[in-house]
Amino acid sequence: MKHLLYLKELNQSTISKLLAKAETFLSTNNFPLQEDKNLQGTTLANLFLEPSTRTRSSFQIAAKRLGADVLNIDDQHSSRVKGESIIDTIRTLEAMGVNYFVVRHKERGILSKIVASLDADSHLINGGESAESHPTQGLLDLLTIKKHKKSFDQIKVAIVGDIKHSRVARSLAEGFRIMAGKKLALIAPEEFKPNMEFYPKAEHYKNLDQGLVNADVVVALRVQKERIESLTKTMSSDDYFEKYGLTKKRLQPCNEDVIVMHPGPVNRGVEISDEVADGTNSVIREQVTNGIAIRMALLSMMQAEVMK
Amino acid sequence: MKHLLYLKELNQSTISKLLAKAETFLSTNNFPLQEDKNLQGTTLANLFLEPSTRTRSSFQIAAKRLGADVLNIDDQHSSRVKGESIIDTIRTLEAMGVNYFVVRHKERGILSKIVASLDADSHLINGGESAESHPTQGLLDLLTIKKHKKSFDQIKVAIVGDIKHSRVARSLAEGFRIMAGKKLALIAPEEFKPNMEFYPKAEHYKNLDQGLVNADVVVALRVQKERIESLTKTMSSDDYFEKYGLTKKRLQPCNEDVIVMHPGPVNRGVEISDEVADGTNSVIREQVTNGIAIRMALLSMMQAEVMK
Amino acid sequence: MKHLLYLKELNQSTISKLLAKAETFLSTNNFPLQEDKNLQGTTLANLFLEPSTRTRSSFQIAAKRLGADVLNIDDQHSSRVKGESIIDTIRTLEAMGVNYFVVRHKERGILSKIVASLDADSHLINGGESAESHPTQGLLDLLTIKKHKKSFDQIKVAIVGDIKHSRVARSLAEGFRIMAGKKLALIAPEEFKPNMEFYPKAEHYKNLDQGLVNADVVVALRVQKERIESLTKTMSSDDYFEKYGLTKKRLQPCNEDVIVMHPGPVNRGVEISDEVADGTNSVIREQVTNGIAIRMALLSMMQAEVMK
Repeated sequence: MKHLLYLKELNQSTISKLLAKAETFLSTNNFPLQEDKNLQGTTLANLFLEPSTRTRSSFQIAAKRLGADVLNIDDQHSSRVKGESIIDTIRTLEAMGVNYFVVRHKERGILSKIVASLDADSHLINGGESAESHPTQGLLDLLTIKKHKKSFDQIKVAIVGDIKHSRVARSLAEGFRIMAGKKLALIAPEEFKPNMEFYPKAEHYKNLDQGLVNADVVVALRVQKERIESLTKTMSSDDYFEKYGLTKKRLQPCNEDVIVMHPGPVNRGVEISDEVADGTNSVIREQVTNGIAIRMALLSMMQAEVMK
Repeated sequence: MKHLLYLKELNQSTISKLLAKAETFLSTNNFPLQEDKNLQGTTLANLFLEPSTRTRSSFQIAAKRLGADVLNIDDQHSSRVKGESIIDTIRTLEAMGVNYFVVRHKERGILSKIVASLDADSHLINGGESAESHPTQGLLDLLTIKKHKKSFDQIKVAIVGDIKHSRVARSLAEGFRIMAGKKLALIAPEEFKPNMEFYPKAEHYKNLDQGLVNADVVVALRVQKERIESLTKTMSSDDYFEKYGLTKKRLQPCNEDVIVMHPGPVNRGVEISDEVADGTNSVIREQVTNGIAIRMALLSMMQAEVMK
Repeated sequence: MKHLLYLKELNQSTISKLLAKAETFLSTNNFPLQEDKNLQGTTLANLFLEPSTRTRSSFQIAAKRLGADVLNIDDQHSSRVKGESIIDTIRTLEAMGVNYFVVRHKERGILSKIVASLDADSHLINGGESAESHPTQGLLDLLTIKKHKKSFDQIKVAIVGDIKHSRVARSLAEGFRIMAGKKLALIAPEEFKPNMEFYPKAEHYKNLDQGLVNADVVVALRVQKERIESLTKTMSSDDYFEKYGLTKKRLQPCNEDVIVMHPGPVNRGVEISDEVADGTNSVIREQVTNGIAIRMALLSMMQAEVMK
């Protein structure tokens, strides 16, 4: 595990190790013991070419907690405004001694291109690529599920929303499949239904009530108002909330101990109601805490292999 | 003192303790002794939703000197461009382990809303809210006065400029009242005269010479050229400087050892002349140094209560 | 050496000491020994009023490696949007305890103005001023040459491109002259030919092949497509590449062990081909690593004089 580009490249054993390692960090509130700070003397660069608070801050905090220095390179201040390609930017940062690169980029496949040109001792981590992959989000979702449910092979996960354009859904589905998850329901109107090839064994539901039957985990996806209107043509955001919005009442078909997840930022009153987002079944804030832990686990395990 | 929203919530004894603590930091050039770095293991987030160099940098330096980590969240790079509310942003950062939040926001009352939704162990500090409050500026102004004048109850403070729209004036006036300050003169043209209800016992002067009589402290407020023109209709910035600009000559009615303060950034030639801004009576740069000390004192005292 | 404004202010002995010091940092991969971290307790502010990834990051990394704290002040978030002058910004940061200032600014002569108003214990470093000076770039170029060539007084350096508007060319030429460099060729079309007064003893060539004869070092300058078209009127960027682009074939007139340099970011296919930029004669990435080392050397030597 030198890089993390796509979740599908990991096997069950590696993911299990990552989850276990993350749990050790959680057990000390994400403050590692001194001897576990194995990134001292390394530098991580966050290259986020799309806006982000939570993922970027999460990597920054995770890396610092492990002893690394962090450089944030934002689009507008960087020499990229002079036209430098991201590969040349990374090559330059490598020459400055940066070892870890977290990249968010909208271009599909850009990470595979980058990895081909990296130095031998550099690490590349996908911080969100196009609409297709966001592996550390997938991992933190798995960690959150694991902490609340006995095992992946006995549960049903339901994802609700614009699945077609969601890298969060794709990465969670990949991870859930690797972990031999039992059942995956994708709940979305026709316009938001994904290419089902990417979701083997999952089932698609247009109807929320039917899709939620016996769900153990419900994941609400962010849906932007403008997007609903432009993509569905006929649906307003109020219509959407009526049909797909998660309210306490609509959760009734789920199992009683269902947990409700959301990658954030939440659009209250569009995909989810306040009472659910802030209610007892919600684990939305736990996901954020778990996000720090899983990123620490990832960095720490990558660095441990370097030290071997 | 878990949070600092508005200066009027503090009493004389608490402010005196803050000023005394700040003076201990000043005595070591704002480099605290190792045993006074009591913010180690904490993280402070600066959420400045209006532009700022000095207040944001001041909190950053103060927090780091005490051992904290600092996250700067700026408006444009954050997920707030996707519509996340500031409360959800803060809730997310809390889940990442951030304990201290410094917020600057133009919306009146936003801080009271935020504080109602915070975790039990979070601290909220007002970094400037609407045109009404900027408590750490008020405190640093008090500290600056205290270092030059024997006591608050024997002096006259005169504030000159656009008092109506100034959170600096409001917070200083609140602090000065709590410290039993003797006399407060507000010098401003009719258009810049504030609602005097917020300034009980203060007197308003349209005439600079009259207002400055026997002043021990003069505070010049920043006045933007565009603002003068749009608000007064009839006055140019040259007219303003003629009537209200602080020059050496215009300071003659003041007491001889008058100190001249300004919250910065200074508009030279509009509200103040170079000779006064850079002259022997000016304590403008001291205010900046005192700003670091008072913010260190504030953070340090908040954290000391946590540790109890 | 309290400040570094222009390379021409340094003599051969000082530059030699800087290069030697930088080489000691390179010998430990730019991670200084604990006892060499002499900037602990200091703060460096990067004030970059033009976009930059590499120079700003390079100073940030260099300063942190030596133990300093770093503040990045960008144009758009700063109070400068309220009209504060850079001198007042720096005066304010001084009052906060910042000791080192790295300034990039497009205004010619601004650094001399700044230095005149600094506190006695502040240090100012030119991070790129107008089209005329970029001294740390010049120094890192000298360091790169020194590591590959026996001595400056036996070699020929050729600079290719828009020399007229290049602060990189100017600073390298100044440094090369101080180090008693043997021969300097400036290769550029008429439109990009500089005022030769600034390049005493250098020769100008319109023809690339003639200019490159027996060159030991070739420096390609960044040339923006839009600039070629607007400045030359008649030349497209393809024409430019045909006439002045560095390809393997065009390097034939050089000495066999020629090194190829470029300040970055590279415009591939305009001033240089991929095969040369990434080829065995290229030292472009080394320059970046050397940039960290030379900035560490500069800061470290400035601070050593303070400690004396």
